[in-house]
Amino acid sequence: MVMDRIFSGIQPTGTPHLGNYLGAIQNWVNLQEECNSVLYSIMDMHSLTMPKEPADLRQNILDTTAAILACGIDPKKCFLFRQSLVPEHAELAWILGCITNVPRLLRLPQWKMKRASQNNEGTVGLLTYPVLQAADILLYKSTHVPVGEDQILHLELAQDLAQHFNKKYGEFFPVPKAILSTTKKIKSLRDPTAKMSKSDPQKLATVNIADSPDEIVLKLRKAVTDFTSEVTYDPDGRPGVSNLVSIHAAVTGLSIKEVLHQSAGLDTAQYKMVVAEAVIQKFAPIRNEIKKLQEDKSHLLKVLENGAEKAKELAAPIYQEIRRLVGFQ
Amino acid sequence: MVMDRIFSGIQPTGTPHLGNYLGAIQNWVNLQEECNSVLYSIMDMHSLTMPKEPADLRQNILDTTAAILACGIDPKKCFLFRQSLVPEHAELAWILGCITNVPRLLRLPQWKMKRASQNNEGTVGLLTYPVLQAADILLYKSTHVPVGEDQILHLELAQDLAQHFNKKYGEFFPVPKAILSTTKKIKSLRDPTAKMSKSDPQKLATVNIADSPDEIVLKLRKAVTDFTSEVTYDPDGRPGVSNLVSIHAAVTGLSIKEVLHQSAGLDTAQYKMVVAEAVIQKFAPIRNEIKKLQEDKSHLLKVLENGAEKAKELAAPIYQEIRRLVGFQ
Repeated sequence: MVMDRIFSGIQPTGTPHLGNYLGAIQNWVNLQEECNSVLYSIMDMHSLTMPKEPADLRQNILDTTAAILACGIDPKKCFLFRQSLVPEHAELAWILGCITNVPRLLRLPQWKMKRASQNNEGTVGLLTYPVLQAADILLYKSTHVPVGEDQILHLELAQDLAQHFNKKYGEFFPVPKAILSTTKKIKSLRDPTAKMSKSDPQKLATVNIADSPDEIVLKLRKAVTDFTSEVTYDPDGRPGVSNLVSIHAAVTGLSIKEVLHQSAGLDTAQYKMVVAEAVIQKFAPIRNEIKKLQEDKSHLLKVLENGAEKAKELAAPIYQEIRRLVGFQ
Repeated sequence: MVMDRIFSGIQPTGTPHLGNYLGAIQNWVNLQEECNSVLYSIMDMHSLTMPKEPADLRQNILDTTAAILACGIDPKKCFLFRQSLVPEHAELAWILGCITNVPRLLRLPQWKMKRASQNNEGTVGLLTYPVLQAADILLYKSTHVPVGEDQILHLELAQDLAQHFNKKYGEFFPVPKAILSTTKKIKSLRDPTAKMSKSDPQKLATVNIADSPDEIVLKLRKAVTDFTSEVTYDPDGRPGVSNLVSIHAAVTGLSIKEVLHQSAGLDTAQYKMVVAEAVIQKFAPIRNEIKKLQEDKSHLLKVLENGAEKAKELAAPIYQEIRRLVGFQ
């Protein structure tokens, strides 16, 4: 697969959890080796689509940045930047919004789901953030975008907007292709039918990658399984234990089959401690690095600023050309 | 009335018509004398909310600029600038969109009316342009905004967003006040129950301020009146002739009463020629100046760029403070 330019973004929700790491960040680390032009953005503008305390947002930006650097994202191999430092994202979003039909956005499942939490009203930010996402991608003429399943409809919007723009104003944007994550979705440890989530009110449901060994042991010990003590992999019939198997495979880099083979004869209580140990092993160095990086706030801010400078150098001439095409100059 | 800062904008639709001039531009010329900090913006971003050919938009920006300069807008007394050259407009619109509820926008009459012309779908640009208008105003901490009646609901949105922002993030924006235009709305010459409009398909309905004397005479001669030959002022009972009286009063600066007194004894056919002559007189010097300015495209572009530089100097520190307040830095 020839990848000319990869764009991806992460919302600054603080230190990522296991699902974020295995579903996205691990993949980011690999992709920066495979492609010469890679942009990773800390999406602070997207963060405003759900209510945030300014102080929390400020802190979360630092924590997210520390974490992804600790996970191996290397600013020498990619442009790591804060979205709100490149004004062209908002500017292009306006232009793309002028060729996006409102009914299409009103039909998107994420809008329907999330507005329920905003008194069923929902803000313009929440409705139109897929348009800003399209601008994020197209602003750099990105060719490839790593996406999770829940973002496929949004990438389709970006693809359609690229084509619509090209038809209206002349061939300009490449139509960005999806890089689908192959990692199994990590589930909540308390309810293995739901995704692992930062905002889960049950504190034991979610393992953060900076959790202490004690916290990891506790959360895995309390993980919901079932009344069968054998370790098997059957996501539909036995979601709890299968989620542990998925986590075990993902953090060790082994296949599901190899993991099951290794765990033959263990009961689920014993197995939980094996998985806990594997998770602790995997994240011990990352956790240390996060703590070190968090102590140097000005370094983190500098990384994001330098990245933004470089992102701007890419974006500015592309946006100038867009201005010319639409008649702004 | 103490006015600290006035903001107003005009969509670049080309050379303005009589309604634009009497309803807005004339007022702009007066306001630049009354307030030390006045910003007038050529709203090219807003132009994209209805389909536009890029070449037309480009030309219309030049023609609108030439016309308002010819009408007496003086870049030494105000900042005259092109909206899309100040990225903070789009950036602030994103932030304000995150505190604007979608249902409120869906209820606005202009959305309902205009989306009918977009296959009843309507674009994000069309739905959310009142949010961009709020950003246009608030970005400069404007205290006063000249508005026509059809913009009052939009100014109310800007006022509410200022208050909502202040409540959420701390006192910051002044709540902008309306300066209501006192000029009578100028009506179509072919259908005096409708507003005079640039996009009227009937060419004789609309007098452009750069029309030749022959065109002005023709359009006024063909103006729809009624079967009573006397000249009276009765907007409800006799909208056609009353519209001519309004135009006559506005271009001469006389009161309705004075105009009626002068016209006593004339029949409507004769009166139309009196009004035509008054319009020709009023706009002859402006028309010459427009033609002169249109020949110097680079001068017009330079005026808009210099204005944008100065607008940016005002906007940048205000937007920096907004970034800090919301947690972007």
